[in-house]
Amino acid sequence: MSGNSFGKLFTVTTFGESHGPAIGCVIDGCPPGLALSEADIQPELDRRKPGTSRHVTQRQEPDAVQILSGVYEGVTTGTPIALLIRNEDQRSKDYGNIVESFRPGHADYTYWHKYGVRDPRGGGRSSARLTAPVVGAAAIAKKWLKEQYGTEFAGCMRTLGEIDVPFQDFAHVPTNPFFAATADAALIARMESYMDELRKSGDSIGARIDVVARNVPVGLGQPIYDKLDADIAYAMMGINAVKGVEIGAGFASVAQRGSEHGDELTPQGFVGNHAGGVLGGISTGQDITVSIAIKPTSSIRTPRRSIDKAGNPVMVETFGRHDPCVGIRATPIAEAMLALVLIDHALMHRAQCGDVRVTTPDIGRQG
Amino acid sequence: MSGNSFGKLFTVTTFGESHGPAIGCVIDGCPPGLALSEADIQPELDRRKPGTSRHVTQRQEPDAVQILSGVYEGVTTGTPIALLIRNEDQRSKDYGNIVESFRPGHADYTYWHKYGVRDPRGGGRSSARLTAPVVGAAAIAKKWLKEQYGTEFAGCMRTLGEIDVPFQDFAHVPTNPFFAATADAALIARMESYMDELRKSGDSIGARIDVVARNVPVGLGQPIYDKLDADIAYAMMGINAVKGVEIGAGFASVAQRGSEHGDELTPQGFVGNHAGGVLGGISTGQDITVSIAIKPTSSIRTPRRSIDKAGNPVMVETFGRHDPCVGIRATPIAEAMLALVLIDHALMHRAQCGDVRVTTPDIGRQG
Amino acid sequence: MSGNSFGKLFTVTTFGESHGPAIGCVIDGCPPGLALSEADIQPELDRRKPGTSRHVTQRQEPDAVQILSGVYEGVTTGTPIALLIRNEDQRSKDYGNIVESFRPGHADYTYWHKYGVRDPRGGGRSSARLTAPVVGAAAIAKKWLKEQYGTEFAGCMRTLGEIDVPFQDFAHVPTNPFFAATADAALIARMESYMDELRKSGDSIGARIDVVARNVPVGLGQPIYDKLDADIAYAMMGINAVKGVEIGAGFASVAQRGSEHGDELTPQGFVGNHAGGVLGGISTGQDITVSIAIKPTSSIRTPRRSIDKAGNPVMVETFGRHDPCVGIRATPIAEAMLALVLIDHALMHRAQCGDVRVTTPDIGRQG
Amino acid sequence: MSGNSFGKLFTVTTFGESHGPAIGCVIDGCPPGLALSEADIQPELDRRKPGTSRHVTQRQEPDAVQILSGVYEGVTTGTPIALLIRNEDQRSKDYGNIVESFRPGHADYTYWHKYGVRDPRGGGRSSARLTAPVVGAAAIAKKWLKEQYGTEFAGCMRTLGEIDVPFQDFAHVPTNPFFAATADAALIARMESYMDELRKSGDSIGARIDVVARNVPVGLGQPIYDKLDADIAYAMMGINAVKGVEIGAGFASVAQRGSEHGDELTPQGFVGNHAGGVLGGISTGQDITVSIAIKPTSSIRTPRRSIDKAGNPVMVETFGRHDPCVGIRATPIAEAMLALVLIDHALMHRAQCGDVRVTTPDIGRQG
Repeated sequence: MSGNSFGKLFTVTTFGESHGPAIGCVIDGCPPGLALSEADIQPELDRRKPGTSRHVTQRQEPDAVQILSGVYEGVTTGTPIALLIRNEDQRSKDYGNIVESFRPGHADYTYWHKYGVRDPRGGGRSSARLTAPVVGAAAIAKKWLKEQYGTEFAGCMRTLGEIDVPFQDFAHVPTNPFFAATADAALIARMESYMDELRKSGDSIGARIDVVARNVPVGLGQPIYDKLDADIAYAMMGINAVKGVEIGAGFASVAQRGSEHGDELTPQGFVGNHAGGVLGGISTGQDITVSIAIKPTSSIRTPRRSIDKAGNPVMVETFGRHDPCVGIRATPIAEAMLALVLIDHALMHRAQCGDVRVTTPDIGRQG
Repeated sequence: MSGNSFGKLFTVTTFGESHGPAIGCVIDGCPPGLALSEADIQPELDRRKPGTSRHVTQRQEPDAVQILSGVYEGVTTGTPIALLIRNEDQRSKDYGNIVESFRPGHADYTYWHKYGVRDPRGGGRSSARLTAPVVGAAAIAKKWLKEQYGTEFAGCMRTLGEIDVPFQDFAHVPTNPFFAATADAALIARMESYMDELRKSGDSIGARIDVVARNVPVGLGQPIYDKLDADIAYAMMGINAVKGVEIGAGFASVAQRGSEHGDELTPQGFVGNHAGGVLGGISTGQDITVSIAIKPTSSIRTPRRSIDKAGNPVMVETFGRHDPCVGIRATPIAEAMLALVLIDHALMHRAQCGDVRVTTPDIGRQG
Repeated sequence: MSGNSFGKLFTVTTFGESHGPAIGCVIDGCPPGLALSEADIQPELDRRKPGTSRHVTQRQEPDAVQILSGVYEGVTTGTPIALLIRNEDQRSKDYGNIVESFRPGHADYTYWHKYGVRDPRGGGRSSARLTAPVVGAAAIAKKWLKEQYGTEFAGCMRTLGEIDVPFQDFAHVPTNPFFAATADAALIARMESYMDELRKSGDSIGARIDVVARNVPVGLGQPIYDKLDADIAYAMMGINAVKGVEIGAGFASVAQRGSEHGDELTPQGFVGNHAGGVLGGISTGQDITVSIAIKPTSSIRTPRRSIDKAGNPVMVETFGRHDPCVGIRATPIAEAMLALVLIDHALMHRAQCGDVRVTTPDIGRQG
Repeated sequence: MSGNSFGKLFTVTTFGESHGPAIGCVIDGCPPGLALSEADIQPELDRRKPGTSRHVTQRQEPDAVQILSGVYEGVTTGTPIALLIRNEDQRSKDYGNIVESFRPGHADYTYWHKYGVRDPRGGGRSSARLTAPVVGAAAIAKKWLKEQYGTEFAGCMRTLGEIDVPFQDFAHVPTNPFFAATADAALIARMESYMDELRKSGDSIGARIDVVARNVPVGLGQPIYDKLDADIAYAMMGINAVKGVEIGAGFASVAQRGSEHGDELTPQGFVGNHAGGVLGGISTGQDITVSIAIKPTSSIRTPRRSIDKAGNPVMVETFGRHDPCVGIRATPIAEAMLALVLIDHALMHRAQCGDVRVTTPDIGRQG
C-alpha cells in the first residue's frame, strides 16, 4: 500500500537505499516447483549493472545476488524468496550543499515536502539503483513464464536524443553498449561519439526504448481497471525517469482511421498489430509491444538555479558518477517490469478461469 | 483483484453491462462529513452522456444517477456510497453475425478466449458506457478535493485526427461539441465538417486529449511503485481506446538535454514544468499535466475481414449508434480518472504522514 | 480497504443501511460459466430473513434479490455480479432520544466518535440487516464450490443461553425455529418457552453456533498470515455480535496433552479431528469445524444507564422489532462467511499451484 | 496476497525458514520521523527468543536484529525498513524418516499436498521461529503507538494445562519463566514441576494467554469486515498453534443476558468492559482485551501412528529441541500481533477521518 510492492499475486516488495548496507526484495507468490538458483538471476542483473561501458555510471558494483529463502534443494517451495544485494561502493563523500538544497529535476524537493526527512546519499530511496532487485525478481518471473508458455522478452533502444536507431534484430542488442538492435557499426560509432561529447559537456540526454513479449497466452488481463495495458503503463511509468508510455500504435493512433487501425483477422491470424497485443485490456496472443520515453538524467555538471530548504536561491551542480543517459541501462529494466506484469496476470487468470489455454489451435497469430 | 475496482483508499467498484438493466458503482472510503446529493454528481454525468451533439452516439440515455447509500441527511457518513444508473435505451436488436464472429479492434476476441462466455449486447462489460459510474464517483472526489485543497480539474481536446486544436482557454471548452479549448469559430466549423464527412464515409478517427489538475498539494505519491505518475498512467491507459500516455514533456523528453528538461527552482517557484508536476513519483505542487492518445472507434460501417468462433473467414460491418470519434467524450472521463488518482493519494498521504500540508509558504509555485 | 469488501479474489463489496432505499453487494471475481439465477440465491436469503417465527424480529422484509449484472443467458460471464435488495419496511418512526444518546452495547458510541456523523435509522450501517447481501453472495460461492469439489456446508445452534442443544443430525435443522440439529421435541418446546419468557422480560440472551464444511479440498490456505483458520476467525468475528471463535478443539486444547490433541494418521485417514480440518493454516481435507459465541442482543426494553452526546446521563430503553437472540438467525450467516473464505482460498490456491487436486486417492479421510 | 504480508498500511512481509541462512521482514508504511535503532527492537526479540529457561526449546539463537534500510541518521524516512536476523543454530541433523512421513498435528501433511514440495528442516516455513521478525516489526509499531497515543501493551499466561494462573499484576510477568502475572511463588514452583514432569514424559500441553492494549484511541476499526475485533481474531488465529480467540467476555457471552453484557455508560465512562474495548467493530477507547487458546506442541517424543508419502503406516516420534508448551513464549507474540493490528487501524483511520482525536474530554473511560 505504501508503494514499495509490485504485483498482486507475484508480489515483489523491495527495500534499501542507494548507499545503505544492502538492497533487496521479497518475492511472495512464486509458484512452487520451479528449479532456481542464483545462476538464473545473476545474468539479468549483469545486463543492468553499472560500469559495463564508459557511457554509463562508473560506480563499481558487482550486484552479486544471494537467495536467502524460498528455495530448498534447488527448487522453489512456494514460500517467499528473499534476494539480497550488498552495496559495495558506499564511497564516503562530501554531499556539500546537496543536503540543504534541491537538485532540479530530482526527487529531493518532493521527498523533503512529503516526509520531512531526506536521505541525500545518492538519492536514497529514489535512486535508479533500486531497480536492481526488481530485475532480479523478474529473472524468476521470466524463467517461469518461459517454462509455462514459452514466453520470451526482448528490448532495445530506438532513439538516443536526436539519433534514430532503426530496428534490425534483437540478436544485435548484446553486441553494443546501447542495447541497440542493429549491426550498423557506423551508427554505433556515431552514438559513441555523441555520448562522449555529451559527457564532456556535462549535460545529459533522453532516449526511447521498445520492449516486446512474445508467445504470450491469449486471455491475460482484467476488464475495466486492471487491464493488461493499464498495468503495463503503470509498470513502465513507475521506472525512474519515464515520462511517456505507448502500447502498439501509441500516439500514432490519433491520426489513424478506424479502417486502418483495427487489426483484421483471418484464419491464419491477425493481419496487423496496431493493438500491440491487447484488445479490451486482454492479451490477444500477439506480441505485446511497448514504447517508453525516458527523460535526460537530472544529475548534470552544468550549474543550475535552485533553492535551499530555507527558500534561499542557490546554484547547484552535481558531481559524482552518473549515467549521462539513464535510458541506456533502461532496456533490461523495462523488460523486467513487463515480465512482472505478465506473471501477475497469468496467475490471476489461472485463479479466475483455471489453467490458461496457451494455444488456440484453430486461429493462427502474427506479430 | 478481478479488475473492477479502482483505488485503494477511495475505492470505486463498478458493475453492469452496456445493455443490462442498470450500471453503477460502490464507493468505499469517502471521508465522512461531505455535503452530497445527486445534484453534485449529475452535471458531470451530463458532460459525458451520449446524444449531446450529432458527432457522438445517438443512443438516448438520461444517465440519471441515484444515491442508494452512504449519505444521511445530505452528508456522507463514511460508509459505502452506491450509485445506480438505469439503462433506459436497451433497444432489442438483431446482433446478426456479431454474436458468432469477432469485430476487428474489439474485445470480442479476447473476452471469448478469456472467459469462454460472451455478452454481445453492445460490447457488454467492455463498453465505454461503463465509464459513466466512474464519472459519477469522480464527481464526489472532485468535490472533496476542491473543499480540502482547492484542487480543480480541466481538460480539452488537442488533436482530432490530422487537425491540431491550439489551446486558448479552458473557458471555451463548454462552448463547442468537441471539448476544444478554443474560441476559433472557423476551426470548430472545420472540425464539424471533418466529423460529418467521416461519419458519412462510415469510418472513425483518433484524438489527443490533455487534462490538468491545479492546486494539487505537494507530497502526494508513493516512491518506487505507486508513484503518482505511474498511477496516472494506469488510470489513463485503462480508459477505453487509450493507446498512449504522457506526463509533462512526455515523448518530447527523448530529445531534450538535462539542462533543458530539469525545471529550475527560484524562491518564486519552479521556472518550468517539464516534469508535469511530478518528481520522483511525488507531486511538486505544480499543475499535473497529462496527455493521452485515443485510438479511432473500432465499430465502423466499413466491411472488414474477420473470423467466426469456428475460425472461418467472415466479413464484419458494425451498424448501430456509435461514436465516430470516442475521443470527443473522453475529456470528462480523463478528468475523472485523474481526480480518482489524486483523492486516493491524498488519503494515502494522510495515513502515512498525517494531514497534508497544503501550502509551502516559503516557496512559490508556477505552472 | 475501508472495510466494506470481503475476500481477495472472490470479492464481495456491500452497501446500504438498515433503513435506506436498498442494500446490496457487488461480487467481483466469480468464475465464468456458472449457471446462475435469482432462484439459486433466494432460498439462502429466506433462511436468514426476519419474521419467520415469533422468536425473531417481526420486521416484514421479503428480501427479494435481483441480479443486476454479470449473468448473461443464465450463465456467469466473469464480470461483476451486482445484487440488489430493496428495503420494504422502512417504517417511519420516532427515534426519540436514541438520536442524541448512545445505546449500551451498540455501535452508536463508536460510530459517533469515529465519523462525527451518525445514522440512527435502525443502527444504520452497523445493523445485522447488512448480512443479507453477504448471504446472497455466499449462495453463489456455495454453488460453485459444490460443483467444483462437492463441498457442502451445514450449521446449527449448540447452546441457547443456559440450554445445551445436543447434536443429532443436520437434517433436523429446518424442522425447528432455532436451527437446532435435534429431533427432540421436548427440548425444542423448552427452548420455545425459554425464548417466550425472555421476550416478555424485555431481555436478551447469547448463543453458540457450530458450522461445518465437508468435502473441502486438501491444500487450501496460505502460510503465516492468510492461514485458512486465521481467515475463518476474521470472517466469524466480523459477524455482528460474535465475541469468540474456535477451530476444532478450540479452548479445550488448553488442557489437552500433545499425545491426545495431535490427530494420528493411518492409511485409512486421520483418526480424529481436533485440528478442525486445518494444520499449519492449510486444509487437511477433513471437515472444517468452527464454533462461535454470540453475545446477547444489545437492543432490549430494559432501561439502562447511558449518556447523551453532550455527556449528560440519560436512561435508554430500546423499543421496536428486535431479535431477542441474534444467535438464532446466525447459522446461515456463519455458513455464508465460511463459504466465502473457502472460495477465496480455492481461487488463490488455483493461482499459486494450478488446479486443486481434490482427492488424495491413497489416503482416506475421516471427520 | 500469498499470505506472507500482514497489515494494509503498516505492512510487514516476512521471509525465511527455520534452518535457512536468515529470516527477516520488510516493513512498508512506517511513518517518517520516528527515532529508531536496533536498541528499540532487540529487547522485544529477547523476550521471545529460545533458551531463556529450561521450560522452552534449548536451541541457541541470539536473534540479533539488523536494520538494513529505512532509517537515516537514527530516524525513519518513510521508506521500507528491512530487518535481518541470521540463523546461527542450523545444526546439521539426520531428519530420518521425518522427511518421508507426516508428523501428527504438524503442517507436514498439508504443505506436501499444497505445494508438492517440502522443507523438512525444523518445519521450514511453518516453524514458530518465523514469529521473530514479526515481534521485531511490532517493536516499531509499539514505539510509534506509544509516542502518538500513549498506547501500551501487556500480556500474561492465564492457564497452563490444568493449572489456572490468577491475574495479580503485569509487573510480575518478567519475574518468572511463564509470563505469569503473579507473585505467588508456590504457584510458580507448581508450574515448574508440572513442566518438568511433562518434559520427562515426552509429552506437551496447551495454554491460555491474555493480552491487553491500553490507551487505545476511540474510533479505530472499520465497519462490516475490517472490524477491529475481526482483524484481531485474524491476527491471533494466525499465530502458530492457536485454536481459539475471544474478545472481552468471549464464550461467556453465550450465557449472559443483554442486561448484564451490554456495558452501561456514565459521564465517568463505561461501567464495565464485556465488550473488550470494541463495539460495532470500532474501538471504544477502553482496554482491548483478548484471550487465546494454544494447543499442545505437536512435536513430542511419544511414538505416534502416521503414514509416509506412499501412504504406508509408520510410527513417528520427534526428537530435537522443542518447546513442551509453545504457549510459554506466546505472550510477546500475541502482544506483537495486537500492536500490528492497532497501528494499521490507526493509519487507516487517519486516512479516512484525519488525525485521530485521542481523547474524548467529556467522557471518561474505564477498563
